[in-house]
Amino acid sequence: MDHAVLDHIDLLAIVTLMSVIQNIFFAYKVEIESKNQHSKSFQRTGSLAFEKVYTANQNCIDAYPTFLALLWCAGVFCSQTLAAFAGLMFLFVRQKYFVGYLGEKTQSTPGYIFGKRIIFFLFAMSVAGILNHYLVIFFGSDMEIYIKTVSGTFSPLLLIP
Amino acid sequence: MDHAVLDHIDLLAIVTLMSVIQNIFFAYKVEIESKNQHSKSFQRTGSLAFEKVYTANQNCIDAYPTFLALLWCAGVFCSQTLAAFAGLMFLFVRQKYFVGYLGEKTQSTPGYIFGKRIIFFLFAMSVAGILNHYLVIFFGSDMEIYIKTVSGTFSPLLLIP
Amino acid sequence: MDHAVLDHIDLLAIVTLMSVIQNIFFAYKVEIESKNQHSKSFQRTGSLAFEKVYTANQNCIDAYPTFLALLWCAGVFCSQTLAAFAGLMFLFVRQKYFVGYLGEKTQSTPGYIFGKRIIFFLFAMSVAGILNHYLVIFFGSDMEIYIKTVSGTFSPLLLIP
Repeated sequence: MDHAVLDHIDLLAIVTLMSVIQNIFFAYKVEIESKNQHSKSFQRTGSLAFEKVYTANQNCIDAYPTFLALLWCAGVFCSQTLAAFAGLMFLFVRQKYFVGYLGEKTQSTPGYIFGKRIIFFLFAMSVAGILNHYLVIFFGSDMEIYIKTVSGTFSPLLLIP
Repeated sequence: MDHAVLDHIDLLAIVTLMSVIQNIFFAYKVEIESKNQHSKSFQRTGSLAFEKVYTANQNCIDAYPTFLALLWCAGVFCSQTLAAFAGLMFLFVRQKYFVGYLGEKTQSTPGYIFGKRIIFFLFAMSVAGILNHYLVIFFGSDMEIYIKTVSGTFSPLLLIP
Repeated sequence: MDHAVLDHIDLLAIVTLMSVIQNIFFAYKVEIESKNQHSKSFQRTGSLAFEKVYTANQNCIDAYPTFLALLWCAGVFCSQTLAAFAGLMFLFVRQKYFVGYLGEKTQSTPGYIFGKRIIFFLFAMSVAGILNHYLVIFFGSDMEIYIKTVSGTFSPLLLIP
């Protein structure tokens, strides 16, 4: 495809590839725990350790299509750099969630949803980008620089744990 | 990205964002029910109410990547407006399915698959769009207007409950 | 959308549509088995036959977004033809995995992960395509032909069962 087009999505593709590596890492964890527990076939239930890693993987996978859709919408309609940065943050949060899920009982017990702030940030970027797109079409006034500045100002908030 | 390109995908992006809101709504329902039932960690099993909401959410998530892929294929290769309309209908059907799943035992019990008609419509649009694309390349005859007219004629059928 | 752009993604769209058909086929298998077992509502547990088909479907769905992301990254950044070929191979492997999962106890018991070689091939293609994209931008040297030749040489390895 034309390199001028690819320029607009290369960072998104890199973050996507990194998320794929993480997915495969999670899948391997499930595979290993499954082999430890079951002599016969793969099942969805088993020992506590297996249930934990399976549920953690399942919860991460449940959120994955939503994350990908937001990442690409935000990146294509608003700012690629900021979307890729937020995507990276999401991968860190997901890693922490997965590891924390397997952790000790005494730790804080994570729920079903994680990375709310990042998902909200990506969603707000997408909405702002689409609104700006209609502003450009109907009124010819491009607010892109303001949106990018505002997004860039708020993006360090994602670093707060 | 170029606003001429974005023009071809803006409605699809809006439907995608709406589906993301719905996903998050479903996830919150699971989270709330999970907190009601479990004092400790999140598990995939529990009381009947939790099992119901978890299964409903799981079934909706299972169909989500398939839906997204069809939505964008149909929108990019055939008609964006009709694909976005069918996508909106799918979101309504999904909402109804989710709420119906949590409902009374006496209600009709939903199965694993939902929104068959809409999925079939989006699939037919995608196939027609791709066939038309090859017609344009090999024979230079663009049937786009006919396909859009036929799709537009059939689209009100999606409104029938 | 412009037919010059669609030319770069038509094969990917065809493979995606084929994977959608397969998804629907898997879902119908679950639906049928569910109706055989449960008189009331759809649940995630039941007889051994239902558990098997549900788990097989779940494992296929778990890998689906990862596969789609890799397919499109590899197809857009590297070679569309080779990515579509690898995608087709993945669909064959997935079919075999699904059928094998439902098979006899005496057969080899499949694990959680399948199609490792194809996933790795698509991943390597994506990475090579993105690296080449940066080479073009920063050094102006396009290695696309070499990458396609190397990928093409390795692609028959995917045919080995």
